[in-house]
Amino acid sequence: MARSIHDLTTPALLIDTTAFEANLAAMDAVLPGEALRPHVKATKSTALARHLAAGGHHGFCAATPREIEGLVAAGLTDDLLLANETLDTARLGALADRANITVAVDSDETIAAASTGGVRSVLIDVNVGLPRCGCDPADAPRLGEAARSAGLEVRGVMGYEGHLMMVADRTERVERTAEAMNLLLAAAAEVGGDVVSGGGTGTFDVNTHCTEIQAGSYALMDTDYAKLDLPFSKALSVLATVVSVSAKGWIIADAGLKAFGMDHGNPSWDDGEVFFCSDEHITLLPNTFESWRVGDRVRLWSAHVDPTVARHERFQLVNGDQVVDTWEIDLRHW
Amino acid sequence: MARSIHDLTTPALLIDTTAFEANLAAMDAVLPGEALRPHVKATKSTALARHLAAGGHHGFCAATPREIEGLVAAGLTDDLLLANETLDTARLGALADRANITVAVDSDETIAAASTGGVRSVLIDVNVGLPRCGCDPADAPRLGEAARSAGLEVRGVMGYEGHLMMVADRTERVERTAEAMNLLLAAAAEVGGDVVSGGGTGTFDVNTHCTEIQAGSYALMDTDYAKLDLPFSKALSVLATVVSVSAKGWIIADAGLKAFGMDHGNPSWDDGEVFFCSDEHITLLPNTFESWRVGDRVRLWSAHVDPTVARHERFQLVNGDQVVDTWEIDLRHW
Repeated sequence: MARSIHDLTTPALLIDTTAFEANLAAMDAVLPGEALRPHVKATKSTALARHLAAGGHHGFCAATPREIEGLVAAGLTDDLLLANETLDTARLGALADRANITVAVDSDETIAAASTGGVRSVLIDVNVGLPRCGCDPADAPRLGEAARSAGLEVRGVMGYEGHLMMVADRTERVERTAEAMNLLLAAAAEVGGDVVSGGGTGTFDVNTHCTEIQAGSYALMDTDYAKLDLPFSKALSVLATVVSVSAKGWIIADAGLKAFGMDHGNPSWDDGEVFFCSDEHITLLPNTFESWRVGDRVRLWSAHVDPTVARHERFQLVNGDQVVDTWEIDLRHW
Repeated sequence: MARSIHDLTTPALLIDTTAFEANLAAMDAVLPGEALRPHVKATKSTALARHLAAGGHHGFCAATPREIEGLVAAGLTDDLLLANETLDTARLGALADRANITVAVDSDETIAAASTGGVRSVLIDVNVGLPRCGCDPADAPRLGEAARSAGLEVRGVMGYEGHLMMVADRTERVERTAEAMNLLLAAAAEVGGDVVSGGGTGTFDVNTHCTEIQAGSYALMDTDYAKLDLPFSKALSVLATVVSVSAKGWIIADAGLKAFGMDHGNPSWDDGEVFFCSDEHITLLPNTFESWRVGDRVRLWSAHVDPTVARHERFQLVNGDQVVDTWEIDLRHW
């Protein structure tokens, strides 16, 4: 029997199933099946990943060894990519007989770690402009050869244009993504292999250069991505209870900065302004103060989906005010 | 046998035991025994709380029902204060035979919830200037009577001068704390009871007005509190592994914004600048770039201790590079 959200302990992390399913459908319309490699770092739930696999996406992208371990334990073993460099490769090698695992490498050291850890397949990670990991494009062919010499299968290349996800103007996003991906495609031609992996929610339909797109945030969304002209809407909110009403015109609810990723700023609220967040409180300035009572519930929108999800133990899937399912957020930590 | 920090999976949350013990000693010199009610919201570990209890602090302060439940389960039952308003009182009432639990109330609704939930003791929470919870000081006597009429023991008052914790000038901090606490003392005189609870790490020695101080951050500290003239030093760091070194002058380590509370900004690094944080990465600009290699380890200082601790499963207690103990962070979530 479905419970009401009013029965939930707060703060609680809600997925609006209508918005969520619409987001998945909008993505599938552009990137069906293996054209999308969903990134589990945004959602960190094998239950959610299973739902995506049932929709035809059998390959997954991960950011941590822990995420790979959890996906394998959940039986989602078809094609797992750790799209980050790691030296913690023995944990992945230990799973090599149970799952197809590919790891990003961008240096002699990470190639050596992959080889000695028992990893079998790699992508050469190429820097395409984001000041983070990835080799110089000119060094990619040498690293590809080094990986093959170390006994690793080189499936191709990856390059993440993360610095372009939030470019507001679509024409500029198209042009700069093409420039970045030209670097990657040139490296791919020399490295060999079938895979050219990149992209994200912000470039999911303008990055037409990769063989697969690594998007995750599209499923749940946040107020930052919602500023862009994307066909996805906010499906993730934090439910909180009003615990105090001040005659000075503010109300206080029981979801604070431990319930949100705060790197993109405060959460947002449809019924007024967010004044500030404390550890376990949010002080709100309602548009219509008089209507608020202790015990009322509010829904708050996260500014950044990934670190918000990572703060919670589970998703409550809701249809309006009814809780229709609960999914554990079981891929957290490291 | 003690392990080396080089054997830890990263990111890992480290407590430097030398700095930690010095912080506890500095606090005890000013607020021994029951003069301090350590706030577990900053540290979220019953192992750490037990260590404080062994040092003479038997009463604890909490921010969530979950923290109270965990303290009770750990046998730390002498005198527990939930220093926040809650309607989730049945969880606390269920523990009333096993522990002395007091709850903050600031309205008729929270008094009714305490009573119906089986809570036995309350403090009247008085607003002393922070735009958050707490009743108008003039309303405190009425609420005290209402609580007594509802069958609750009114142990006294609390008021948190959170808006004054980061006042840099000590003289100003002294004066404004006195002003805020005069409001609280006036309410206390009318409400009755023995307890006047307030304060925090920033005012631990300038708030000479309360019968007990609710401080927690002093034990581990962060870069924000370290700006003040306090006798506590940073004991908490996040250990990360360098996974990529770019010829462009930056290095990337595997602790990102999912390993830190980001509401007070980026973490800090003694050996260079923090360029930016991604979900699972930090891009660093080292002072001496040439010396850094893939596989090196870095220690990063958190800007805000409470939400950083809440992102991790355990503390690793270290003496230099040796891991001497592991404490679970078992009071997380809600």
